[in-house]
Amino acid sequence: MVALGGGHGLHATLGALREITPNVTAVVTVADDGGSSGRLRRELGMLPPGDLRKALVALAGADDNAKLWNSVFQHRFGGTGALAGHAIGNLVLSGLIEVLGDPVAALDEAARMLGITGRVLPMSCEPLDIEADVEGLDEDPAAVRRIRGQVAVATTPGRVKRIGVQTSAGDVPTACPEALAAVRSADLVVLGPGSWFTSVLPHLLVPELHRAIVETKAMRVVVLNLVPQPGETAGFSPEQHLDVLCEHAPELRVDAVIADANAVPTPDRLRRAAAVLGAQTLLAPVATPGAADRHDPAALARSLRHALAGTTSATGQEMVGYAGREPGGGEEDTWR
Amino acid sequence: MVALGGGHGLHATLGALREITPNVTAVVTVADDGGSSGRLRRELGMLPPGDLRKALVALAGADDNAKLWNSVFQHRFGGTGALAGHAIGNLVLSGLIEVLGDPVAALDEAARMLGITGRVLPMSCEPLDIEADVEGLDEDPAAVRRIRGQVAVATTPGRVKRIGVQTSAGDVPTACPEALAAVRSADLVVLGPGSWFTSVLPHLLVPELHRAIVETKAMRVVVLNLVPQPGETAGFSPEQHLDVLCEHAPELRVDAVIADANAVPTPDRLRRAAAVLGAQTLLAPVATPGAADRHDPAALARSLRHALAGTTSATGQEMVGYAGREPGGGEEDTWR
Repeated sequence: MVALGGGHGLHATLGALREITPNVTAVVTVADDGGSSGRLRRELGMLPPGDLRKALVALAGADDNAKLWNSVFQHRFGGTGALAGHAIGNLVLSGLIEVLGDPVAALDEAARMLGITGRVLPMSCEPLDIEADVEGLDEDPAAVRRIRGQVAVATTPGRVKRIGVQTSAGDVPTACPEALAAVRSADLVVLGPGSWFTSVLPHLLVPELHRAIVETKAMRVVVLNLVPQPGETAGFSPEQHLDVLCEHAPELRVDAVIADANAVPTPDRLRRAAAVLGAQTLLAPVATPGAADRHDPAALARSLRHALAGTTSATGQEMVGYAGREPGGGEEDTWR
Repeated sequence: MVALGGGHGLHATLGALREITPNVTAVVTVADDGGSSGRLRRELGMLPPGDLRKALVALAGADDNAKLWNSVFQHRFGGTGALAGHAIGNLVLSGLIEVLGDPVAALDEAARMLGITGRVLPMSCEPLDIEADVEGLDEDPAAVRRIRGQVAVATTPGRVKRIGVQTSAGDVPTACPEALAAVRSADLVVLGPGSWFTSVLPHLLVPELHRAIVETKAMRVVVLNLVPQPGETAGFSPEQHLDVLCEHAPELRVDAVIADANAVPTPDRLRRAAAVLGAQTLLAPVATPGAADRHDPAALARSLRHALAGTTSATGQEMVGYAGREPGGGEEDTWR
């Protein structure tokens, strides 16, 4: 099973998938240019490590040694000096990449340290830049400006119309070969939740990865966000998230869209937008009780099992693995 | 077997001792205030990690995983940014110390990563400062000035007369309890080679550690430097190294002094200085062929075995372990 994304959204999906199988591969965006990652990327000219680290931590094992390294990877230096704010895991990953000269080998070694049974891979082996066409930044509300960089796009006060991804040299990005192989051989590919324009859509904008996602025999599931993200998707409805997915990948077919009923004001509109992608819509209570903006891994796992059991994959073969509702799970999942 | 020191000198002793036994403990100075270590010490207020890292690397295992982490620990970030010059091992050690809150637990974990069978311990669990009384810095050649800090003392153009060690608050330092236990239960304690005033003598200036070294039932061996160090011991003869040892630890008895014959212009003077400490002098070809300023681990191991076999320890028990000269070992070791 493969989860594509970045940041906290990918963390949630990985937490859910690891409840279903030990064989989880994370494919992670490498376009971050902010914080500790952005500083390392600019200073050392390498992949921004933060989202890779978050994915590693989400899949870390439960033995004492894995727990220790999980804590160390997440620990950030304090103080007011040159290291303040750097996560140790970012520095370790940067060092492994420099020494081994290969981000995939470095991530496999970090995965070993953290007792991970699955794998964490970058979408591309070189750092990428996000560019967005944004309107509403000028007096003329229809004027479109091109904004460059993950932080700039994620926090734009304008309205993102379309994004693109390129290398620092302005070239078309190549995909990580191991990530392509993982998508092509998966049973299940999960896209989202997460920052829609800066963590989710970029996977569809690396041409080879786009093709692998479109062509894989795996079931394709899209997990929608629980709340619109201030900045890049402020004011976006759930169905608008699907609309922009469709605009950026018109050939993409999806089997199921999972959304929390409480985050869907107009279910019929969502169902129609999902149908355009070929997807059934599963409304399910997937938010963390008391934290309505965060997915609950166990609840999301239950809905993913539900989707696997209730939908027919592109191969025409009924997917298995749904062992029924866990007791005390609250509201029912509902197919629309 | 316990080796006390710091920096490259300790690296040489550890390389020799690990040829004799897997059960090697390094006790390391923590008074460095220069380079990557000094930056981390000032920024994070913790033990300077560089000499601890060098000792870990000297004892690292030979399997692939240990070799990889050995390379990663030694790798330094390049470039011109905030991280330039930091060894990754220094950052990992700093992170482990912050997360575990205990330098000994952090070093034990790092030792596990590096496949070390022995142990690396700090002389004290808090960072220390070296102070030196130095003459020759003023017009009056006999005027004495107090110089503070490892870098300042190591590079002084004056002549070091006496050193002291204290905490940043100016208090008498306490020793690391595990280091005390290791010295007291050792069979062999090796002091030197290394920067005499800033890596070797400091061990005798932490009162509890001084007492443990003086009182241990272990055989005590001093290994002299191959060349005087520019700055702190410029122009010092081998026997003067023993004289200052004696001045800083009058009660210390030593069983053997090992020196390279090529680095001893006046063997009789050295023998007399060693006799003041109660030690026999072993002149041995311990320099690396082609690098006369560096000890050869195999040659130093042979001389340490020779010392163990040829000298009687303070317990009155003949030490064992000397399996005779290796073939092709060059010149003879000579007891003077």
